[in-house]
Amino acid sequence: MSASLQGYAVFRRLFSSRVTLESSSSSSRPLRSVRRSFVLGRPFSAMAAAKFDAPADGGTAPKLLFRQLFEKESSTYTYLLADVGHPDRPALLIDPVDKTVDRDLTLMKDLGLKLVHAMNTHCHADHVTGTGLIKIKMPGVKSIISKSSGAIADAYIEHGDKVYFGNLFLEVRATPGHTAGCVTYVTGDAPDQPQPRMAFTGDALLIRGCGRTDFQGGSSSQLYHSVHSQIFTLPGDTLLYPAHDYKGFTVSTVEEETKYNPRLTKDEEGFKNIMENLNLPYPKMIDVAVPANLVCGLQDVTLSAM
Amino acid sequence: MSASLQGYAVFRRLFSSRVTLESSSSSSRPLRSVRRSFVLGRPFSAMAAAKFDAPADGGTAPKLLFRQLFEKESSTYTYLLADVGHPDRPALLIDPVDKTVDRDLTLMKDLGLKLVHAMNTHCHADHVTGTGLIKIKMPGVKSIISKSSGAIADAYIEHGDKVYFGNLFLEVRATPGHTAGCVTYVTGDAPDQPQPRMAFTGDALLIRGCGRTDFQGGSSSQLYHSVHSQIFTLPGDTLLYPAHDYKGFTVSTVEEETKYNPRLTKDEEGFKNIMENLNLPYPKMIDVAVPANLVCGLQDVTLSAM
Repeated sequence: MSASLQGYAVFRRLFSSRVTLESSSSSSRPLRSVRRSFVLGRPFSAMAAAKFDAPADGGTAPKLLFRQLFEKESSTYTYLLADVGHPDRPALLIDPVDKTVDRDLTLMKDLGLKLVHAMNTHCHADHVTGTGLIKIKMPGVKSIISKSSGAIADAYIEHGDKVYFGNLFLEVRATPGHTAGCVTYVTGDAPDQPQPRMAFTGDALLIRGCGRTDFQGGSSSQLYHSVHSQIFTLPGDTLLYPAHDYKGFTVSTVEEETKYNPRLTKDEEGFKNIMENLNLPYPKMIDVAVPANLVCGLQDVTLSAM
Repeated sequence: MSASLQGYAVFRRLFSSRVTLESSSSSSRPLRSVRRSFVLGRPFSAMAAAKFDAPADGGTAPKLLFRQLFEKESSTYTYLLADVGHPDRPALLIDPVDKTVDRDLTLMKDLGLKLVHAMNTHCHADHVTGTGLIKIKMPGVKSIISKSSGAIADAYIEHGDKVYFGNLFLEVRATPGHTAGCVTYVTGDAPDQPQPRMAFTGDALLIRGCGRTDFQGGSSSQLYHSVHSQIFTLPGDTLLYPAHDYKGFTVSTVEEETKYNPRLTKDEEGFKNIMENLNLPYPKMIDVAVPANLVCGLQDVTLSAM
C-alpha cells in the first residue's frame, strides 16, 4: 500500500465514527437558528445560552490553565487551554503542528490533562496540522474546524458557536479574508470566564500585521471587515494570540493593535492597497500543507507514527 | 579609530556617571548587612525591608504589565515587566539581546513605558546582551548584573537585594552553577505583588533542563544546590521563565520542574553524572559573546548604532 493510500485508510478509520451536529433533542429544530455548544463528554447539542452561566458539572468553579507553545520552523504558535477546576481537567489545543505533537501530548500528560478537542483556526498553508497525528495517538480526541474551511474534521463550527472544555468555553467568530474559512476563537463573555478575555486570531490578525490575502479564497476587503467587526470590537484589554509571529512577539492587545497595527489602522482602501502590493513569494509549504490539512493533516502520514 | 577602540570610548562615556551603591544616608553602615533596594528615580540606598510593603509614590496600587519576547537565532527570551499602576509606568528588561533592541524599544514606546533598568541574569555566552545598545539609545537606563559575574554595569546586585520598578519589585537570588555569577530574579513576596510569583531563572533552570556547567566558572554541584535551595523552595505555582527554550515551551512551574525535570529530579550524584557526560560542543558564540558581555555588550560596537 502506498504511503498515500495508507494515510487514506487511517483517515477513513479515524473519521468513521464522526460526530454529527444533530442531537436527538434538537433534530427538529433548524440548527442555524440556535447557538450550539460542544460539551465535553456529551453529544453536541443545541443548548440555550443561559446554560453557559451555570456550571455544567456539579458546581466546580472553572480555572484556566494556559500555555503558549512555539514551532520554530514555521513560527507557529499552538495554544493549550484547560479547565483545571473541573475534575476531568479537560483541555483543548488550538492550531497544533504535526512536528510538535509528541511535545504537546507529553506536556498534556505531565499536567494531568484530558485532551478533548484539537482545533484549527483555518486550513493552514504553511505547516501541516497536528490534529491527524493527535487522533491517531489519542483516538478519543475530536478535531474541529470551520465548515467553510472545506477541510474534514469531526465537528464543524460556525460563527456564534461555543466550544466547551469543562466549564470554560470559547466563542467562535467568523473572520474570513486570509482564507474563506478563518475563525477567531474568543474566551467566553461571562462572569466565571477568564478576564481579560483572550482571542486566538489565527492568521486573520497578527501582531502588527495580518495574514496574506492572495490565495485560498483570500480577500483583503473581507479581512478588513472581519478584523474591524469581530476583533477590534472586543474590549481593549483583550489579549490577542496569533497563529504565528516572526519577530518574537508572543501577545498583543486589542488596544495596541487598533493603535499600532501598520496595516489595519489604515482605512479600507489604504489596507487593500497595502495587501495588493506585498509581492510575497508563493508559499513554500502550500502544496504540501493544504492538501494534508484538508484531510486533517493525515495525507501521506506514515504508519510508523502509529 | 578601530571599531574596538570606538566601542571602548563609548563604553567609558556611558559608565562615567556610574551609580554607586553607597548613598549618603547609608555610607556609614556596612552594605552587606542590609537588604538594598534599587528604586526608580532615587539613588540606590539602604532601605529597611518594611519599606517594601508601603507604596513608595503616593499610594498607587501596583499593576504588572508583562511581556515575553523571543530572539529566534539564539532562542533567547527577553522579559519586559512594568508597573502600569504607577504614573511613570516604569519598566525593566531582563536579558535583552543586541539584535532585538529596536523591537524592544519600539514596544516600550508603543506601550507608553519608561525603561529604567536593563538587567542580565548572568554574563551570557550564547548571545550579546542588548544592555549596551539600550544605554546608547536611551542614556537614562541603568544596566544591572551580579557583582560576581565579573561584568561591568551601572549597578551590581547580590543575593537578597531588591530591584524596584515603581511599586513592584524583584528579589535577587544567587543561583550560581551555570556560571559563577548567575542570579534568579523573583517577583516580590508581598500582598500587593503579582500572584502567582514569577521567577526569571536565566540558564540556572531551563524547562525540563538546565544550563551547562562546563565553562565560565560552572559547577554541577553548585548548580544542583542553587536550584534546590533557591528555586524549588518557591511555591509550587511559581511561574518559571528561563533565558532560553529550544523546544518551543514558554513557561513552566516549580511544581512541574520538581516532578518532571529529567536532570534536577535526580539526586546530586545522578545530576553530576549527567552533567559530566553531556559531551556538548564548544559554544559557538562564546568567544564573541563573553568578551562583549563583560563590558555590557559594547565591545566592538559600531558607532553607526548611535
